[in-house]
Amino acid sequence: MTSASSPSPHLLDEALRLKSIADDDDHGAAGPSAGQYEGATHPGYWNMVGPFGGITAATLLQAILQHPRRLGDPLSLTVNYAGALAAGAFTVQAVPVRTNRSTQHWTLSILQAGADGAPVVTTTATAVTAVRRETWSVGDVPMPEVAPPAEHKAMVAPSGAVEWLSRYEMRPIAGFIPRTWDGSGDHSLTQLWMRDAPPRPLDFTSLAALADVFFPRVWLRRARQVPAGTVSITVYFHATAEQLRATGSGYLLGQARGQEFRNGFFDQTVQLWNEAGTMLATSHQIVYYKE
Amino acid sequence: MTSASSPSPHLLDEALRLKSIADDDDHGAAGPSAGQYEGATHPGYWNMVGPFGGITAATLLQAILQHPRRLGDPLSLTVNYAGALAAGAFTVQAVPVRTNRSTQHWTLSILQAGADGAPVVTTTATAVTAVRRETWSVGDVPMPEVAPPAEHKAMVAPSGAVEWLSRYEMRPIAGFIPRTWDGSGDHSLTQLWMRDAPPRPLDFTSLAALADVFFPRVWLRRARQVPAGTVSITVYFHATAEQLRATGSGYLLGQARGQEFRNGFFDQTVQLWNEAGTMLATSHQIVYYKE
Repeated sequence: MTSASSPSPHLLDEALRLKSIADDDDHGAAGPSAGQYEGATHPGYWNMVGPFGGITAATLLQAILQHPRRLGDPLSLTVNYAGALAAGAFTVQAVPVRTNRSTQHWTLSILQAGADGAPVVTTTATAVTAVRRETWSVGDVPMPEVAPPAEHKAMVAPSGAVEWLSRYEMRPIAGFIPRTWDGSGDHSLTQLWMRDAPPRPLDFTSLAALADVFFPRVWLRRARQVPAGTVSITVYFHATAEQLRATGSGYLLGQARGQEFRNGFFDQTVQLWNEAGTMLATSHQIVYYKE
Repeated sequence: MTSASSPSPHLLDEALRLKSIADDDDHGAAGPSAGQYEGATHPGYWNMVGPFGGITAATLLQAILQHPRRLGDPLSLTVNYAGALAAGAFTVQAVPVRTNRSTQHWTLSILQAGADGAPVVTTTATAVTAVRRETWSVGDVPMPEVAPPAEHKAMVAPSGAVEWLSRYEMRPIAGFIPRTWDGSGDHSLTQLWMRDAPPRPLDFTSLAALADVFFPRVWLRRARQVPAGTVSITVYFHATAEQLRATGSGYLLGQARGQEFRNGFFDQTVQLWNEAGTMLATSHQIVYYKE
């Protein structure tokens, strides 16, 4: 997946490197056609107490994409962050539990050795891949009318910021991270242009990660920086592989909005369009927050 | 769960009846603390080629609610419809794969005997339950201003309609099912008042089912009735058990809207408020459609 013009692998490709450690046809405890992969957390995508959630989602998708029995392209992915990954090696299990004529259903998990050496589940997931055919199509959420990327300044990650922020070029349009934490927030809508940094041709894995780049809505809504972390994210992929190729290393317009903040959890809706205005993915997540 | 005033169980409670068939502490192939339950499809919730998707989601949640190791109340639920359930018995597996201090992560599946007698996965799911504490809270999607339920006529299911429709009282406000299939559709927004029929005090299971009552958005958007079926649904629960009790057997205002219809699949966002304007749940799904 290294683009022809780059001399060394993109950090995203380094982070997503998975080595198959089980035969596809090893009908073991994990079930028929279980794929087992070894990977490792990447310091370039480190968040506060574990990897950036988007890279974890992308890693799970990568396991599916590498699986020899895969049918079709990603349609939906749900990732549940059960516990933070520790820095180091992990195992991904990807099982195509049911393959239909044009859809395939996956269950996945990430495991790490716990304190006593026994494997501990850090992440669970399900996914659907599908063979898609051209049909009647229409978008019902048009891309907001905003000025092009060049007319918005790229954010510079503040010193001391978490490392993964430097893996993305973000050009805030509206609702960016508050400058002062004075409790003055009154909405939860963020819009920004964004892409991998350095630029990298878009694919399903990077699209999945981009669905999770938004800072916690509760920070914006309250103008208060409370501890927060994603519990579960779902991504629906609308783009075909050709539409991703056509997007190339261009910008995506990302939009995120909170719906309900209640008793320690809020939910967020996300839309991602390419510069041509094609909706590539929609996403949702439920996020823990403190106080 | 039968209300004191009803002489016989509500059909929803009949449909959700699960019998535990494995010891909680049977550390077998399905993993630690796997719950195994036997249930059966209910003719009262039959759709076209299988049960109403909402009753399947509610059944999975019911398995969690009956599990002796459960921590907290439902926070999120994702259900993937891998294949239609046949009429008859099924097995639900519910495994609390990781229990944290205040959250618990579940993987679930429904199995039925296939043609050769071997178990076949019809449905996969993940869920998170959580112990919630009171925090700063705010709604960012206020309930639309609409006339109260009594001012909207209850829909009468047309003859020949699928059976589960008669399990719900629906009072359309806007964007209801087209009267003529003439290709004239121009939006995908539906709003309606709804509740179980006969009325039944709201709980997490009935709330999960209500998140799936909306007819396929593609029918409204196109004013064309093409084959369609949910592939994956996610429900985020915002309500506490007390808020559900306060809602009682009152109406919910349900709102559904499609976002993107592309190459055989569209996604839908859903919000559910009670009559007092409290957001009880938000939901999303990705739906197959033909042509």
